[in-house]
This record gives sequence, structure tokens and C-alpha cells, in this order.
Amino acid sequence: MDENPNPFLISMITLYPEMFPGSLGHSLAGRARDKGLWQLDLVALRDFGEGKHRQVDDTPAGGGAGMVLKPNVLAAAIDHASNVNDTRPRLLMSPRGRLLDQQYIRELAMEPGVVIVCGRFEGVDERVIEKRNLQEVSIGDYVLSGGEPAALALLDAIIRLLPGVMGNSVSGQYESHESGTLEHPHYTRPQSFEGQEIPDILLSGNHQNIDTWRQERSVQITREKRPDLFSKLDEKES
Amino acid sequence: MDENPNPFLISMITLYPEMFPGSLGHSLAGRARDKGLWQLDLVALRDFGEGKHRQVDDTPAGGGAGMVLKPNVLAAAIDHASNVNDTRPRLLMSPRGRLLDQQYIRELAMEPGVVIVCGRFEGVDERVIEKRNLQEVSIGDYVLSGGEPAALALLDAIIRLLPGVMGNSVSGQYESHESGTLEHPHYTRPQSFEGQEIPDILLSGNHQNIDTWRQERSVQITREKRPDLFSKLDEKES
Repeated sequence: MDENPNPFLISMITLYPEMFPGSLGHSLAGRARDKGLWQLDLVALRDFGEGKHRQVDDTPAGGGAGMVLKPNVLAAAIDHASNVNDTRPRLLMSPRGRLLDQQYIRELAMEPGVVIVCGRFEGVDERVIEKRNLQEVSIGDYVLSGGEPAALALLDAIIRLLPGVMGNSVSGQYESHESGTLEHPHYTRPQSFEGQEIPDILLSGNHQNIDTWRQERSVQITREKRPDLFSKLDEKES
Repeated sequence: MDENPNPFLISMITLYPEMFPGSLGHSLAGRARDKGLWQLDLVALRDFGEGKHRQVDDTPAGGGAGMVLKPNVLAAAIDHASNVNDTRPRLLMSPRGRLLDQQYIRELAMEPGVVIVCGRFEGVDERVIEKRNLQEVSIGDYVLSGGEPAALALLDAIIRLLPGVMGNSVSGQYESHESGTLEHPHYTRPQSFEGQEIPDILLSGNHQNIDTWRQERSVQITREKRPDLFSKLDEKES
């Protein structure tokens, strides 16, 4: 394990610490961790629960289904993970949050780290969100069983952008969402696959033509598959 | 472990089988798996690689950074996981894909299962996407190191909707994205937290007023935080 004086510090507040590092312990993120480029501080919310049963949640005021995370319990866990001098953003994974995009990922990757609260149950008491200045973040418009899978996806996207993580930094620039368009189609050997050939132009050796073809296909695919992104592209150019 | 004659069958084609079941082995999804409500068939793509080094990728035709998954190798893995009579949808986790939303999750949860291909490297040869009828799915407009964290999030969202998984099915209906609006704020004991009280109306016992307050706050939060969702709401009502 290499020494790194300034690893990206992730404090993870969760009821399921056994879910981490999970997928982040392997492949690109796992190797980055071995190199000391990021560090995980797991905070088990249960440790801050009340009474013999370490209660962390209670019924919602006003009635209704589900349980709500208690504000004082969550505040104690946050205060343990992050003192008043800590400048790291505090994120709450939540379907109500700011919708994650690559721009937001880039911003987070420039921070010294993040404090992440994973919600479970019906929700989190609104007062602790305000008092502890939690930024609600959503990875998409669908409902998960809790914040943990969302946090794993968010962190995977952040970690690959940390300095020293991606071997070939050129690779990042041409990917979907870095330029606002979706990626062009890819081909590799064999030249014929089930009767279908690699397009001639890609075998021509004319790099200018290849670049033009790729850019055109990229724009075409964006228009066909994601008209919402395509219209943003128009706005940028005009 | 209970018997279930028809578990939701997930075939996962990946270079990193050690990433699974990951977070799906715990909490709600883990208990559902113990009850036999879903089943995981892990397919290690490396097993289908070519030659002594089990090569699965090759350089992109036309040049450029990164590596591309070979069409014949991926096709062999897919054919192993899913025969011609298999009606399950075949998904390719990809930033170019259809953007995941709760409607799409509901559709997938009604299938007998899913075949999921996790991409890595620069991408996947376009021909195998066509020949094996892969539906490209994106969990959001950001770039991950591979399809695996995306597959974990997708499956978490699907599994919680499978019959028998959620104890209290009422809980699902009032959540963010099920009704097209974001959730109202939640509160629970203690009544006073750092000088801030639970709103009086929630303690009034008048359930009609509470419902109205929650609906109003839900619409207000949607308008403030997600004007894009709010405008869709307008379209539905008008």
C-alpha cells in the first residue's frame, strides 16, 4: 500500500456498514484504494441509537406508513464523523435530491472528501437536514431500498476522476456525458461477426475521416436516443 | 430458506463476479433472496475469453483510447446465460442507454427476470448489441467505471417491487417518483430538536388537514427542487 498524504476521505453514515466497500473494493476503485488515493471511514448509525435496542427511528409525526430516522441520533453520528472545521460537503442520498450529473461529479471530485448519509425507512427528520446542512442528492428518478446502492454508484463515479486513478486520462474526455453527447459506436476484431463487418471507414486509416464519422454518429445517436440532451447541445452551440 | 417455484432470475454477465451480490446480499434484498424471491446466476465473462490469457477485449477499430469488448466473446457468454426460448429482457448497462425511471423499473419487475451485461473498458462492439438484441440502460447522466454499480442500483430498485418483498405495500405508494411528485418532509420524536419544533399541524390529530398539508408541501418541494418534474405534473393534470 502506497503512502498518500491527502487521500479523498469518505465518511459513510449507514445502518448497513457491511455493504461497504462492496463494489468499490475491486477493479479501478479497489486499486485506487490500495494506492491510498481514497479512504473510507465507516460510521455505523446503530452505534448512536437510543436505549437497550439502539433505536434509530420512530413513527412519523402525523401518522402514516414507515419509520423516520430520529434527528438527534443522526446528528450525533454526523457530529462524530465531521467536526465544525470539516469543509467536506455533507450529502444525503435521497430521491428528493439534486439530480446527479457529470458536472456535479466533477465538483465533488475536487473536494477533500465527502460525508455521506444513507437514508433508510420512510425518510429522515427534516430538522436534521437543515441543522446539519445536508445536501440531498439523487442518482435518478427511481426508488431504492436505501441510500447505500446510490452512494456506491456516486462514489464509483467520483473515484475514477480522482488524480492518479485513471491510467489513460485521454479515455475520460471522449466518453458519454463528458462532451454533452453520447458515445459513438465501437468495433473491434474479428472483422466479420455473424455476417456483419466493421464499417469500412474505420479500417481506412484516414484519421480525419474517422474523427468526422465518429462525431457525426455521436450527435446522431444523441438526437435519436436522448432528445433532451440533444436540445441542450443546440443551446450550447447557438 | 423457503421454496419459491418462480424466483425472479437474474443472469449477470460481468468481468467482476466478486462484486455480486454485494449490497444486494443484505437488508431488504438480502432477506428477499433468503426467501427465494430472486436468484442470481453469475456468468464470469472471463471464462469465455480467447486463448491462454482469456482475452475478452481488443483495440478499437479506427484507433483511439481504451479497449472494446469483443463481440464473439460477449455473444458466447450471453448464449450461455440465455437460450433462444428465454423471454427475459437483455440489458446492457451503458451511459448511452434509455434513462432509468420508476416506470421502467415497474415494467422490469413484472418480467420473469433479467439478463444483464456489465460493460467495462471503452465500450462494447456495436454488432453484438444488435445481434443479441441488448437494450441499453443508463441509471443517470454520469460516468461509472463499469456497469456493475449501475446493475446493483437497478436491481435494488427492481427487487423491492417483487411480490412478497416489501412488508408494508402501502409504504411504496407515497414515495417520491411513484406519484410523480417528491416526498413531503418527515418528522418524528423528539418534539423539539435543537430549538426547532415539529410543525403543529402534524400533532393536531386532524388527518384531513395533515393529508392536505403533506400534499401541498410535496407539490411545493417538487416545484422548487425539480421544475422539470413539476412541469410534467402540470401536463398530466391539464
